Amino acid sequence: MDASALQLIILPAGIIAVLFAIYLARDVLSRDTGTPEMQAVAGTIFEGAVAFIRRQYTTIGILAIVGAFVIGAIITIFETKAVADTNTFGLDLGWRTGLAFIVGAACSMASGIIGMYISVKANVRTAAAARRSLVEAVQVAMRGGAVSGFLVVALSLLGVYGIFTLFGGLQGGQATHDAPFLIVGFGFGASFVALFAQLGGGIYTKAADVGSDLVGKVEKGIPEDDPRNAGVVADLVGDNVGDCAGRGADLFESTAAENIGAMILGVGVFTIAQAAGWPNPQAWIFFPLVVRAFGLLSTIVAIFFVRGREDENPMNILNRGYWVTTILSVFALFLTTNVMLQTTGAAPSGMPVWLYFFGAGVVGLATSVAFVYITQYYTAGSFRPVREIAEASKTGPATNIISGTAVGFETTFVTAITIGIALFASHWLGSQAGITNEAGHDVGGIFGTAVATMAMLMTTAYILAMDTFGPITDNAGGIAEFSRAEAGAREITDRLDAVGNTTKALTKGYAIASASLAAFLLFSAYIDKVNLILGRQIEAGKEGVTLLTSVNLSNVNVFIAALIGAMLVYFFSSLAIRAVGTTAQAIIVEVRRQFREMPGIMDYSQRPDYARVVDITTKAALREMIAPGVVAVATPIIVGLLLGAEAVAGMLMVGTIAGVMLATVLNNGGGAWDNAKKYIESGHLKDDQGNVLGKGSDAHAAAVVGDTVGDPFKDTAGPSLHVLVKLLATITLVLAPLFIR
Amino acid sequence: MDASALQLIILPAGIIAVLFAIYLARDVLSRDTGTPEMQAVAGTIFEGAVAFIRRQYTTIGILAIVGAFVIGAIITIFETKAVADTNTFGLDLGWRTGLAFIVGAACSMASGIIGMYISVKANVRTAAAARRSLVEAVQVAMRGGAVSGFLVVALSLLGVYGIFTLFGGLQGGQATHDAPFLIVGFGFGASFVALFAQLGGGIYTKAADVGSDLVGKVEKGIPEDDPRNAGVVADLVGDNVGDCAGRGADLFESTAAENIGAMILGVGVFTIAQAAGWPNPQAWIFFPLVVRAFGLLSTIVAIFFVRGREDENPMNILNRGYWVTTILSVFALFLTTNVMLQTTGAAPSGMPVWLYFFGAGVVGLATSVAFVYITQYYTAGSFRPVREIAEASKTGPATNIISGTAVGFETTFVTAITIGIALFASHWLGSQAGITNEAGHDVGGIFGTAVATMAMLMTTAYILAMDTFGPITDNAGGIAEFSRAEAGAREITDRLDAVGNTTKALTKGYAIASASLAAFLLFSAYIDKVNLILGRQIEAGKEGVTLLTSVNLSNVNVFIAALIGAMLVYFFSSLAIRAVGTTAQAIIVEVRRQFREMPGIMDYSQRPDYARVVDITTKAALREMIAPGVVAVATPIIVGLLLGAEAVAGMLMVGTIAGVMLATVLNNGGGAWDNAKKYIESGHLKDDQGNVLGKGSDAHAAAVVGDTVGDPFKDTAGPSLHVLVKLLATITLVLAPLFIR
Repeated sequence: MDASALQLIILPAGIIAVLFAIYLARDVLSRDTGTPEMQAVAGTIFEGAVAFIRRQYTTIGILAIVGAFVIGAIITIFETKAVADTNTFGLDLGWRTGLAFIVGAACSMASGIIGMYISVKANVRTAAAARRSLVEAVQVAMRGGAVSGFLVVALSLLGVYGIFTLFGGLQGGQATHDAPFLIVGFGFGASFVALFAQLGGGIYTKAADVGSDLVGKVEKGIPEDDPRNAGVVADLVGDNVGDCAGRGADLFESTAAENIGAMILGVGVFTIAQAAGWPNPQAWIFFPLVVRAFGLLSTIVAIFFVRGREDENPMNILNRGYWVTTILSVFALFLTTNVMLQTTGAAPSGMPVWLYFFGAGVVGLATSVAFVYITQYYTAGSFRPVREIAEASKTGPATNIISGTAVGFETTFVTAITIGIALFASHWLGSQAGITNEAGHDVGGIFGTAVATMAMLMTTAYILAMDTFGPITDNAGGIAEFSRAEAGAREITDRLDAVGNTTKALTKGYAIASASLAAFLLFSAYIDKVNLILGRQIEAGKEGVTLLTSVNLSNVNVFIAALIGAMLVYFFSSLAIRAVGTTAQAIIVEVRRQFREMPGIMDYSQRPDYARVVDITTKAALREMIAPGVVAVATPIIVGLLLGAEAVAGMLMVGTIAGVMLATVLNNGGGAWDNAKKYIESGHLKDDQGNVLGKGSDAHAAAVVGDTVGDPFKDTAGPSLHVLVKLLATITLVLAPLFIR
Repeated sequence: MDASALQLIILPAGIIAVLFAIYLARDVLSRDTGTPEMQAVAGTIFEGAVAFIRRQYTTIGILAIVGAFVIGAIITIFETKAVADTNTFGLDLGWRTGLAFIVGAACSMASGIIGMYISVKANVRTAAAARRSLVEAVQVAMRGGAVSGFLVVALSLLGVYGIFTLFGGLQGGQATHDAPFLIVGFGFGASFVALFAQLGGGIYTKAADVGSDLVGKVEKGIPEDDPRNAGVVADLVGDNVGDCAGRGADLFESTAAENIGAMILGVGVFTIAQAAGWPNPQAWIFFPLVVRAFGLLSTIVAIFFVRGREDENPMNILNRGYWVTTILSVFALFLTTNVMLQTTGAAPSGMPVWLYFFGAGVVGLATSVAFVYITQYYTAGSFRPVREIAEASKTGPATNIISGTAVGFETTFVTAITIGIALFASHWLGSQAGITNEAGHDVGGIFGTAVATMAMLMTTAYILAMDTFGPITDNAGGIAEFSRAEAGAREITDRLDAVGNTTKALTKGYAIASASLAAFLLFSAYIDKVNLILGRQIEAGKEGVTLLTSVNLSNVNVFIAALIGAMLVYFFSSLAIRAVGTTAQAIIVEVRRQFREMPGIMDYSQRPDYARVVDITTKAALREMIAPGVVAVATPIIVGLLLGAEAVAGMLMVGTIAGVMLATVLNNGGGAWDNAKKYIESGHLKDDQGNVLGKGSDAHAAAVVGDTVGDPFKDTAGPSLHVLVKLLATITLVLAPLFIR
């Protein structure tokens, strides 16, 4: 098969995925919507979610438009002919970058909004299905989740492809060579939206959760999701806006930024391929798009394998589809590397070059699988870490917190080792291909890492579907509880909810791994960009200029910038966590007020004013997301302006490492605390005499403290750090010219 | 004055400081030892402390002897003529390094043991003095603490000077040039002892604290330090072995390692000075020793200014002495830089060169002052952070923990910015001196940072005296409570205890700042060492070898090593925190057993078996310190062997940054939680109606949870991280030849 024929698959695959998402959406919407009580509460959740999303995306939209103009203006002023990557510069480049930024922002927002819409429609249908069958409930929730998954990945693919085409990517020759550099604005726009979507959603969801629980469960002693609690609808809305819209934006950004980074690295090989006369040099640039297209097609097939027996562990049903996606991806990767990454000679070892890149791709897929299982080990109740925390709860909340912290810290070990092995192996395999540029530097190694990254992203749509499965089943459980559905239905939604906790956690692990690899790719692209500018300065005869051959940590400016990068992740997290506290305080005051002023609530004779709590939470969350957002955007710019281009690269790398580690601690610690509580609730914890310490015991109360502490860690600060890490990468890449004296 | 005349002060100053410590010790020992009840409990504490110290230092001593032989053997095998810094190599260098290691270890152990001995004698005398006068109690505690302070700094100075002299440092010319390289083993030995002293002491103190509180306060409802609690003596012993011996070893290591690092950097200037014919080139090597000698003399004077009024805040009395030390140090620094750092010409600006280094030194002293006040802001009850945590306690333990975490994370901001400014300013001032080596590279900048570091260390003895003031007053309070002393005495010991919490916290801030600067110095020394080896390989005609001109973060091996460095600090902390949990569990079991099997304890008719708990804690703490200790020592060696010399440098730098940030979070978060509890206990927290929420309120219970969580953070993991960071630096420096292929 010819490589250029394979390229033809990109557009159809993207469109098929969108059509498939529409098919799934219609399928979900056509299902039984349950009892009138269920419909009533689902309607309230829907209204609240739409209200938040409308207001949040209006705010983000305005910020994005301002951002686009600012970026466009900066590029116009600073990206002069002397510093541009390509022959497009000044105003010409400025408007293109601004446009790409807006398109990236718009695609991210669109996929977030539509995915959310289906998610808050799928919840009640999952609850209704749970009255009949576990498998049906799993399928409804998973299909609802897959709408998000497909839309995010397909719109990211189509967006990148579209803007690439618009900027001449299909014209061949120099135009194709130049196009990847013109589309980095797309990634920046996606990052920008993701930052605020994740922060706003993360603050909303956990503030509503903590705030309504503290008044309802702790002060009034009524169950979670009890309809008498005025904050309960805000809590259910929060599950959607945080986990669904937030993580969708996060992974939209990952796929877009990594795709663009890989294409820029592909340009390096393209130049070599042209000079060496390899068949179809452009294939090296198109490769990431084609791989992703095949990933989408594999996932479509896999959705039909989400089936099983009624008595089966629901996690197995989901894992079945995941393995189908992975195995099909391996075959697709074999085909793609074989057809597209052809050279005229063999690698130094005598093996064909493409085989090494296929190997690198398999490393990427294996990393994805590894993270799925590592997260399960650390956050699922059946293994040592969660049991350890549950045991520690016997001696009270303090030992619960200490134990959870120790577990959270411990999880960095296997995370760092796995990422390290993935980077080393993919880079080593790539370097064995023996591809070197004019200056004699190896470029195969970093391209190997790019292939691994793209392969890892082949399963994104499926992972994201599993992630959105989480809030849908969580909501379904809430609806069942709220509408006082029959016990059988509640038992099924409880089982699905526990699985949803695990899928949410493993998506975060996956997002962290992909963020690390993405940062390494974009970092290489940043160095290339800086050297291009410096190279032109040298050509122009400017004195004292040398190329940036390394990011030297022993340079004092780089060290200081690295220190600031490591600090930034803590400071940003501090602001995010504090924002949850401030917003929760507003909710507590309002829920208390309603209990006080509407005495009929407790005997069900008065209906609490749910909408008012939703409204207060919305306003507070949007106000509180501004400070951490501004810190995230401003810090790299300030450091770059004060300390220069090399220093900002050091900040980017060390900030990424520090951010990935802290996010791992926060996500896994929070997940383990959550499941330690669930472990106790399921009656697995016993005292010395063998009596069960279940709900209502002191150990359970201690575990609830840990769970509450973990909430803002795992659902606000941790996921926001993923976005921060990628934002650092795209912002420095786009603004590189600013940082060169 | 002549520079060589000034050098003569080193030995007398060290000896005077030791004599002064003996004078202080005799003064303390001659004081009133209080009531028979006080003497009884103090005797028990003394026995327990001696038992632990004997066993701990036996273990550490054995480890150190094994370590010395291993290091000596490795150096003998790998540090061949081709790679040695100097003309001493092979076995000749091996035994010297092993000997230096043993001397460093022995000096560190000696100062720890003697300081501890006086500390556990000063506690009861402080309690006795508190029956009469606040000022007298402050003086007894401070003089007891100063014994540790002077011994640590003086033995570190005399040890470095002695081993430097032994290895030919006073012979002039090439021998003086070579000697600093031969004494790095001294710093490694000190690091090695500090690691285990801090880990063992930190695990002991917090396990005893948490374990005895959980059974006594929580389960039995008896007060803290109540004599009926079998764990209470172990708790009081722990204050000494953790805070006093641990921090002493930590700062012993800081002063030794930074002194040696600064001398190695001085060798670079020495070579330039010889070539340029500056007056007394050797002065650049001796400078760090002379500065420290003056620091000791300044501190001796300052001890006599520790006086004040009875109604004064005790913190003011201590601050008075600190300011005397600092101001005298400025004058001494002026003299020393003016006399010793003379050149023949002026700096490029026309100003004398020494003036820039004086400026750099002032930056160092200012950094020290800044950290003292930053820590007070974040951990003292009168400011926003602690009040915020206290307020959050109103809604329970979960919000207390969330708020404390946010505060802990936030403290990284001002820490990183202050360290960044100190590094930048001292480096910039040094670089203005215009000192360049043969290759045209600036060496003044890094020497400026070295001067700042040495200046910062001038106040170490005073800082350490304030630190040891903490456990002494804490113990005095415990003895007063235990012996049921009169209310007036208890009130005074309570006030001193609160001040002691602050002084302990600020010592940690100071230790962190000095660890960051030390790492940067030792890192430069490491790069010099690696290049020396590589330079000889190039001279010998080995192909493909290039000098290490940078530590390139964009190199995949360096990035992976950096990732492992950042992970190591979390993993190490996880092991340390878990060790506290495991040890505490052993204590809980034993204290419970005594309550159960000795029913007379509760009505005072039976005396609990305190010694048995001390014994169990001792054994468990020593067993549990092994795992984190081995991880700390093994990781840099494994990374160096697998990924090479450049990668290990990346690990060192990023590990340092990550370690400094995490230690800041753990120390300050823990300190703030502790003082939030104290803030509530002093009746400062009020509810909406203005009622005081004091001891016994739910808010207080929540704050106790935060305090307990903070204990292993601030007293085990945080301080152990300081040591880890410096160990990474010394271990890589000593083992550099191993890491070069």
